[in-house]
Amino acid sequence: MNWLDEVKWDANGLVPVIAQEKGSKHVLMFAWMNREALEKTAELGRAVYFSRSRSKLWFKGEESGHVQTVHQIRMDCDNDVLLLEVTQTGHEPGIACHTGRHSCFFSRYENGRWTVTEPVLKDPATIYPPSPR
Amino acid sequence: MNWLDEVKWDANGLVPVIAQEKGSKHVLMFAWMNREALEKTAELGRAVYFSRSRSKLWFKGEESGHVQTVHQIRMDCDNDVLLLEVTQTGHEPGIACHTGRHSCFFSRYENGRWTVTEPVLKDPATIYPPSPR
Repeated sequence: MNWLDEVKWDANGLVPVIAQEKGSKHVLMFAWMNREALEKTAELGRAVYFSRSRSKLWFKGEESGHVQTVHQIRMDCDNDVLLLEVTQTGHEPGIACHTGRHSCFFSRYENGRWTVTEPVLKDPATIYPPSPR
Repeated sequence: MNWLDEVKWDANGLVPVIAQEKGSKHVLMFAWMNREALEKTAELGRAVYFSRSRSKLWFKGEESGHVQTVHQIRMDCDNDVLLLEVTQTGHEPGIACHTGRHSCFFSRYENGRWTVTEPVLKDPATIYPPSPR
């Protein structure tokens, strides 16, 4: 059986993906892949997701330059979630989030409210081209 | 606005949740929560998920004793994914996976196939009660 067939794709042909930074082990982001995205990720050694909002392959870093080099692809016990070990390139420290932060998980729950806990490392206006997306 | 209302629940009233081990920073598992599960998790300081297969709250460890103490709850930039920082109790080293392994992410992609990379720490037959589940 082809390794791509072993993944349990959901009703939309997608699988959830967690990206974790090599070294720091920070969880950087969460996204989705379809079959083609996973195949490309393995082939290129860089993270390729499927953008649900734009309904197309999303070569992480294609606009921002913040490409994710993929060192390892793992799958969970139910074959329906993937975990990538990545190096977040293009900025030091790495910026995975579209808000210009290191990680997308910058809100923390505390005493009945969500608090922002991570600084913006780079203004998003300077990360993304001004053309309509 | 109530902090629970800030979460963008999906069409089924759920949100994906990543559990990461405090200290080792290993990603242990991935599951789902509904509003009640998240509220209970914050209230009790232990992970409560929503089991999609059983359509009910799943107090992690209720059968296995492998309870997850929750130290931190984080949310991502789109308010639609949660990240828990947990201590996996009940066995040393912690067992998060129903297969008796430390982490659910024990399959690794290598040269066109998935390979099991983590040992079974405890026989699942001795973790779960023999009664029909």
